[in-house]
Amino acid sequence: MKQSLFFVPTLKDAPKDAEVKSHKLMSRAGLIKQVAAGIYTYLPLGYKVIQNIERIIREELEKIDASELLMPALQPSDLWKESGRWDKYGPELMRLTDRKNRDFCLGPTHEEIITQVVRDYVTSYKKLPLALYQIQTKFRDEMRPRFGLMRGREFIMKDAYTFSATNEGLDEWYKLFSKAYIDIFKRCGLDTKIVNSDVGQIGGDEADEFMVMSEVGEDNITYCDMCEYAANQEHSGLNEGDPCPICGAEVKVARGIEVGNIFKLGTKYSESMNAKFIDSNGKPQPMIMGCYGLGISRTLMASVEQHSTENGILWPKEISPFQVHIVPVNLKDEAQKDLAYEIYYDLKQKGIEVLLDDRAERAGVKFKDADLIGIPYRVVVGKDSGEGLVEFSDRFKETKQLIKKTEILDHI
Amino acid sequence: MKQSLFFVPTLKDAPKDAEVKSHKLMSRAGLIKQVAAGIYTYLPLGYKVIQNIERIIREELEKIDASELLMPALQPSDLWKESGRWDKYGPELMRLTDRKNRDFCLGPTHEEIITQVVRDYVTSYKKLPLALYQIQTKFRDEMRPRFGLMRGREFIMKDAYTFSATNEGLDEWYKLFSKAYIDIFKRCGLDTKIVNSDVGQIGGDEADEFMVMSEVGEDNITYCDMCEYAANQEHSGLNEGDPCPICGAEVKVARGIEVGNIFKLGTKYSESMNAKFIDSNGKPQPMIMGCYGLGISRTLMASVEQHSTENGILWPKEISPFQVHIVPVNLKDEAQKDLAYEIYYDLKQKGIEVLLDDRAERAGVKFKDADLIGIPYRVVVGKDSGEGLVEFSDRFKETKQLIKKTEILDHI
Repeated sequence: MKQSLFFVPTLKDAPKDAEVKSHKLMSRAGLIKQVAAGIYTYLPLGYKVIQNIERIIREELEKIDASELLMPALQPSDLWKESGRWDKYGPELMRLTDRKNRDFCLGPTHEEIITQVVRDYVTSYKKLPLALYQIQTKFRDEMRPRFGLMRGREFIMKDAYTFSATNEGLDEWYKLFSKAYIDIFKRCGLDTKIVNSDVGQIGGDEADEFMVMSEVGEDNITYCDMCEYAANQEHSGLNEGDPCPICGAEVKVARGIEVGNIFKLGTKYSESMNAKFIDSNGKPQPMIMGCYGLGISRTLMASVEQHSTENGILWPKEISPFQVHIVPVNLKDEAQKDLAYEIYYDLKQKGIEVLLDDRAERAGVKFKDADLIGIPYRVVVGKDSGEGLVEFSDRFKETKQLIKKTEILDHI
Repeated sequence: MKQSLFFVPTLKDAPKDAEVKSHKLMSRAGLIKQVAAGIYTYLPLGYKVIQNIERIIREELEKIDASELLMPALQPSDLWKESGRWDKYGPELMRLTDRKNRDFCLGPTHEEIITQVVRDYVTSYKKLPLALYQIQTKFRDEMRPRFGLMRGREFIMKDAYTFSATNEGLDEWYKLFSKAYIDIFKRCGLDTKIVNSDVGQIGGDEADEFMVMSEVGEDNITYCDMCEYAANQEHSGLNEGDPCPICGAEVKVARGIEVGNIFKLGTKYSESMNAKFIDSNGKPQPMIMGCYGLGISRTLMASVEQHSTENGILWPKEISPFQVHIVPVNLKDEAQKDLAYEIYYDLKQKGIEVLLDDRAERAGVKFKDADLIGIPYRVVVGKDSGEGLVEFSDRFKETKQLIKKTEILDHI
């Protein structure tokens, strides 16, 4: 894409209410723009990262044979009355009435809808197991929206639901999703720890959270470098430097950003909403359900929090909005202009996602924006253009070298 | 995908309230399921078609240098008060209050939000022109939701907005989008006609609608086979069989399904919302805007309406949920089972989207479902499996032949 048309409105200063690094950087780099408290527009650069995260999720969930569907945001109250949550859910649930005065809510989660979908079709054990997921906008009227995308009122989630005939079937899905989550977060450049957690308003028998260690998380987590599992400090009672009970390694304490959670729902919804199947003995049984949430907009935010300095972002390769950033120093110089466009079209044709800074800005402005935006490979087209030489930076390795235009692909 | 896990819940009978062919077929083929009046879940097969339409839109809009972003569904009333539409918009606008009693609406369209995005960043003619679009769920509280996805209350749209410094700039975008729309609909298997229309609640100077001729449209359209443009019958005053005023061809009359609309907004929103830029003479001017809607869920519905019989769908190739449907007659026969799975994994590995009917159902049920689902190429694995022969159907050409398993790719 050409930067002049792609709309990357970088800012010198972050909005005054931006407290944490990721929120400041995402505003300054032109990734998001606030519309109201906890409600954001994803600008083109930010939305490209969101779409990359979504692609990774789809790829990993296809591997475990989960199918994608899309449920509505508007949910009629009668389904929530069936499950008993219409009265129990607090003011976080956004409610509204339609023109005929019927009650609806904006879904913060979709247990009721998915149970309605599956109960009407699946009547026999022969049609189980089943794993369904969606990538969708969710709504939750937070008391105190804050930290940018961390605690928003409208946010993007992947939510999945499994239906099994037996508890062992549920255990299997639970393990498959847990493994898929670790792979997804790894591809997004995030190290996560699994923390056993409360079931909360979703309900059910068992739940785990996927946490990214960070300065800006909301819980104190005790963990060590050796184990996949970690614990809330209030539960573990451990302190920084203690030996870890499982492996003997040293305990660390950090705050955790919850980027995913998985729940063994059991029969909570299938009992209350009468989602039954006929088992192999001909007897009706409630389906055994699991649910699996993953915060997509929050994953974006956690990634920026982890992979950045105060001056800019450095995107993990798989979610970077572009792979290569071409920055011509002076577009009025014909040799520079020609070479920049030549490289741009050449890389594009080879399937590389490339951003060309074709703006009529001073070189200093362009470099500062490039640092802020954080694309991992940078090609500076400057005074050596006449000889077909460009300055190639690998921002991960922190290397910079003069190379021939034909050598760029070898370095990516 | 394996059909047993992909969740394609076909039905013998359509819901009682389904009046039109597409609504009946989409329910019976397991593409959609109603949640409330005008509100649907897109089941996996239906959502795959939606995603194919979205992919085509993204490809065609990238060609004209439009950039994708994502705006929120929740819109604060203050922006709608700025534009003057908070009071003017009727009961179709779904309104709600948050926990602090602030007014919001659920966006049926996003002129206010996009104007807020652009006015805060674009201050000079040097940053224009600009074309931004999103693919998003919209809300409109229709008095009488009907015809399945045709007139829904929650639906999927692509909406684009352009910002120009001059009227000529707007004209250029208008032509580019018009051309892109024709290409998009063609790739979706739809012939469209362009009808000059009222500007309605969106406002502005000029508007065109893209119509698919069909039995179930909502307006009477006069058109001919030679011209890209058509007209509402009440405006044209023409009748079936009249010579067409422009080209002399015979006038036809049909009902039209509106799948897209484009508007020259002019300065309606930039004036009221103070979206100004400094022109090349140093003077502040309101930006000149265009807006371009495309109904994605409605395009799906129009496509089913056009490409189907009472017994089933026949998907246009570019939006078909799968390219090949493998139907083994009897999975208990080892030779059939082995060959079906061998072909399945082989085609998958070659990047072909393939659905394997691995369900323990009778052959008659499988064939009936396959007719209903409408995947264009079908491979029946039956009694000749021992010799590596399968029955290959090209449902477009209405041909059926016994071929070797190695020849399948040549026929696609």
